[in-house]
Amino acid sequence: MAIEMNPIGYVRTDVKKLPRHWSISDAEGTLEIDEKYRDGLTDIEAGQRIIVLFNFHQSSPFNDSYLRMTPPHRSREMGVFSICSPIRPNPIGLSVVEVLAAEGTTLRVRHIDMRDGTPILDIKPYIEGRHDCPSYTEPETPSS
Amino acid sequence: MAIEMNPIGYVRTDVKKLPRHWSISDAEGTLEIDEKYRDGLTDIEAGQRIIVLFNFHQSSPFNDSYLRMTPPHRSREMGVFSICSPIRPNPIGLSVVEVLAAEGTTLRVRHIDMRDGTPILDIKPYIEGRHDCPSYTEPETPSS
Repeated sequence: MAIEMNPIGYVRTDVKKLPRHWSISDAEGTLEIDEKYRDGLTDIEAGQRIIVLFNFHQSSPFNDSYLRMTPPHRSREMGVFSICSPIRPNPIGLSVVEVLAAEGTTLRVRHIDMRDGTPILDIKPYIEGRHDCPSYTEPETPSS
Repeated sequence: MAIEMNPIGYVRTDVKKLPRHWSISDAEGTLEIDEKYRDGLTDIEAGQRIIVLFNFHQSSPFNDSYLRMTPPHRSREMGVFSICSPIRPNPIGLSVVEVLAAEGTTLRVRHIDMRDGTPILDIKPYIEGRHDCPSYTEPETPSS
């Protein structure tokens, strides 16, 4: 049974030649989020890193020939789940971007690798490691 | 226009009381990937950290009352895009897990926070920071 997703907004950028991956990108653009999700953007502030999940909306449909591919700058084939290929069984992309400014439903961000018009599926807090979840606090240690 | 996703496999675990988030979880389980994606699992090995995208298949449908929520252990409401709530506009979850063993289409992993039967949407390499993409190599510096 298929799972249906709907865009929460779109990426806008006038950078024409985007780097292949956020980890090597200094490109800037905006995340234009739908007005109906405005309140959900509370707490996103300049200086934060956030995770953006998006749809590779211009990628070819996946087929078996994309199960192993040779990424750019590599000399051998690798499995699709070990590389950042936009042609995947489910065409979901993930980028970690830095918020430069948050104004209403527009987030200005740096390090993008998504094309202008890319549908955004979700935004999540960037959690580096263990015990770093915003809703986590250390359990109280019993006083003895 | 809705975007359709289909599970690439399912999470299996016999842990009944799962931690709320991977960053505080030592729970173990397996990712059982569909046979047709076997070749895509090439290069996933014990010791690696991987990103698992999955569907919050048992979460309530999203509505406006979930735009701001008070997470467990917090004393104030936060925007849905700044917290790890499973009730989101698009019910996609993200966990970073450690591979304990990779055998065929079964990955044994630690740090799971997904329930038994959770549909898996994608697996991606865990990329910590800049210039860390598996397909990236530093450009050659011109010899002078």
